[in-house]
Amino acid sequence: MPPPACPPVPAGLELFTDLYELRMARAYRALGMDRQEAVFSLFVRRLPRNRNYLLACGVEDLLDTLEGLRFGPESLAYLRSLGEFPEEFLRWLAGFRFTGAVRAVPEGTPVFAEEPILEVVAPVAEAQLIETLAMNQVGVQTLLASKAARVVAAAAGRPVVDFGSRRAQGVDAAVAGARAFHLAGVAATSNLLAGARYGIPVAGTMAHSFVQAFDSEAEAFRAYVRLYPETILLVDTYDTLAGVRRVVALAAELGDAFRVRGVRLDSGDLLALSREARAILDAAGLRQVQIFASGGLDEERIAALLAAGAPIDAFGVGTDMSVSADAPALDLAYKLTAYAGAGRTKLSPGKRILPGRKQVFRRFRDGLAEGDTIARAEEPPLPGEPLLVPVMRDGRRLRPRPPLAQARAETAARIAALPARLRGLGAADPPYPVAISEALAAHEREVRARVAS
Amino acid sequence: MPPPACPPVPAGLELFTDLYELRMARAYRALGMDRQEAVFSLFVRRLPRNRNYLLACGVEDLLDTLEGLRFGPESLAYLRSLGEFPEEFLRWLAGFRFTGAVRAVPEGTPVFAEEPILEVVAPVAEAQLIETLAMNQVGVQTLLASKAARVVAAAAGRPVVDFGSRRAQGVDAAVAGARAFHLAGVAATSNLLAGARYGIPVAGTMAHSFVQAFDSEAEAFRAYVRLYPETILLVDTYDTLAGVRRVVALAAELGDAFRVRGVRLDSGDLLALSREARAILDAAGLRQVQIFASGGLDEERIAALLAAGAPIDAFGVGTDMSVSADAPALDLAYKLTAYAGAGRTKLSPGKRILPGRKQVFRRFRDGLAEGDTIARAEEPPLPGEPLLVPVMRDGRRLRPRPPLAQARAETAARIAALPARLRGLGAADPPYPVAISEALAAHEREVRARVAS
Repeated sequence: MPPPACPPVPAGLELFTDLYELRMARAYRALGMDRQEAVFSLFVRRLPRNRNYLLACGVEDLLDTLEGLRFGPESLAYLRSLGEFPEEFLRWLAGFRFTGAVRAVPEGTPVFAEEPILEVVAPVAEAQLIETLAMNQVGVQTLLASKAARVVAAAAGRPVVDFGSRRAQGVDAAVAGARAFHLAGVAATSNLLAGARYGIPVAGTMAHSFVQAFDSEAEAFRAYVRLYPETILLVDTYDTLAGVRRVVALAAELGDAFRVRGVRLDSGDLLALSREARAILDAAGLRQVQIFASGGLDEERIAALLAAGAPIDAFGVGTDMSVSADAPALDLAYKLTAYAGAGRTKLSPGKRILPGRKQVFRRFRDGLAEGDTIARAEEPPLPGEPLLVPVMRDGRRLRPRPPLAQARAETAARIAALPARLRGLGAADPPYPVAISEALAAHEREVRARVAS
Repeated sequence: MPPPACPPVPAGLELFTDLYELRMARAYRALGMDRQEAVFSLFVRRLPRNRNYLLACGVEDLLDTLEGLRFGPESLAYLRSLGEFPEEFLRWLAGFRFTGAVRAVPEGTPVFAEEPILEVVAPVAEAQLIETLAMNQVGVQTLLASKAARVVAAAAGRPVVDFGSRRAQGVDAAVAGARAFHLAGVAATSNLLAGARYGIPVAGTMAHSFVQAFDSEAEAFRAYVRLYPETILLVDTYDTLAGVRRVVALAAELGDAFRVRGVRLDSGDLLALSREARAILDAAGLRQVQIFASGGLDEERIAALLAAGAPIDAFGVGTDMSVSADAPALDLAYKLTAYAGAGRTKLSPGKRILPGRKQVFRRFRDGLAEGDTIARAEEPPLPGEPLLVPVMRDGRRLRPRPPLAQARAETAARIAALPARLRGLGAADPPYPVAISEALAAHEREVRARVAS
């Protein structure tokens, strides 16, 4: 079934760039520098708190966008209205297409500080223009996938459903986020646009408003079950345990026709309520009726509930996952690392840039990752798996977008191959070791000495 | 100059809803309830930490979307593919348009916990379907406008420029956020799509990459100034104060042709560096060259810099403002408060719903707000300004979107009319008083007693 004809990002996206990118592009062009080859590297400077690793995501949407990026007449008219760009430059923009090469780690690859998530090799004016898009898209999707991986780990095999669209920071974060969550192991999303666009399983139960619209909760349950016999019933509108007892009464009323899959607890003390609900259901012989919990959940609360033995079978997670509440932004950078064939860096404090084109080698022992080395792309391969692979050349994808189900399975395998101390919620001790190769370290010294002179 | 032909939100947005909304809509229809009148209220249950008030935003984009919301053939095909919706319901969706009425507080109105930002009166199935959109859009824009108001307050009259698009949570958050920031008092945005779509002033300087691409910083400055004589020069790529001295040298070189407006400090100790930069510039007779600071700024850091006397003339603020880092989500709710003419509520702990249609009256003394009362919409008007005004009837706007500049000026006046203790960064003591009218309290008691029975 084809997805609806909606682009991954709104029309006019060629303008989703910062004014300074266009000013610099125009300057490069005026100075005859625009065709010089530049290397830009997209990486995270340091991991946010509460993250032992990040899960790379967003590259596939970015590649689709790069392939289609054109400056339409309305965008050009807007730029002309700013009164600072010469007609020659606007004509160049009218013919713009991204012609660069991209190497990237596959989506769902765990990455660490300073490791390139992607590297762009392109004429400098082109590589510059895509900075805002690349950072924004890879940033938000990596942020959200990384958060979801923690929630999924906390749920310890129980399904997690994304309920976050209402509280996500905008439409794009909700839809791209639903995909990032699914990649990271979330079972389903409530968001139909994400379901349609990416083929993610969709899920949903009922809202309080439905119960409220009836004169009694019992009547609301009866009506809903008639239409959705296998639904999950939301029981906390008035009194959670009374709601559970109404489900028991409904089971008695319906006999063999009772096929309700579960009850959903959405407020109150979820540990106590889940135990009491389980006891009530079991006493009524309704062992097959599952308990679904939601309401203010994040990975810490899920872990605490399960550690205390809460008999919860599945979790609905919204707000905290949808905005990565404990770490709502990444210290992401998109930096020039080479220009016209020579390595580049800067010396600003706290803002290291590893020069040149790079590769990351991940070493495994007994199936578990034991350390990475960031190396020069040009040096002889080091031991381990090279993480960056070519994904675009001359502005064209080298392969179609992998099916999401396949990417999701590979992601699960990559996470499972991390040392156990990284997969837990606490700070990994020791942190995962990431080294710099001797050749890269020597190149960095050389470039720093050159630019400092 | 017309904005580019890009919708405020991507095509396919009719699917930006949660599966349960459609399940309930179908149930209402199957049960013959779908045309019953429902009242839904959108409000924040409690203010997030570090917020003395919220700045309502997002209603204008929502109204545009509601006017145009239609289920296209591809969306219907997707819904059909889910295999659970009868053809009769899909036909109803094919003819769907939002026919409801909306009352809302004007964008840029300070609001408090439990005060309706908007109320929808519509056939229940329609009001239900728009929940996800309404919460997502009003939520993110209110969140971001509220954060920006703090940053603007901290800057104490100095211009603040939005540099957040690269770190915002997605394209929509960046673009709608730029508008929310501007409404709240931010002077300009770096984002061209936001500039084009909403007519926001755009600003930008240069990136480190431009400096890095040259063999020397002096050469990079010289080249850039030739094209952009009045630019702000980024001086921290290698050594901030050496960069400032290069600007001084450039001034000597160019003589009367030197028109550089400022230097930008983007890393390091901004207090010490701004003082030293100011001293260097002043000693060279360049008092007119301003100091622009950016890099990891938020309202607290800006306030601390200015309290310490940092000679900074303008601020570029990115990450922390663009994701509202200290409070990245609102405890927003969209709740059924009346159905078929009767008030509704729920009794879940910590999730109060004030029943019925409501109005908020804000009382002023000597031009300053001194307290609000949330009242029934039906009761005789209380003293003060009624905040909710009709903005949509029969699914059509009652007036066009107000010009952003006008909305921005009105917002500034509304913020200025808050008591001073609310406008500072610290917790307002005492908090702003919000009362419930006697008639509303009585109605709440009556509805709670009814549903508890």
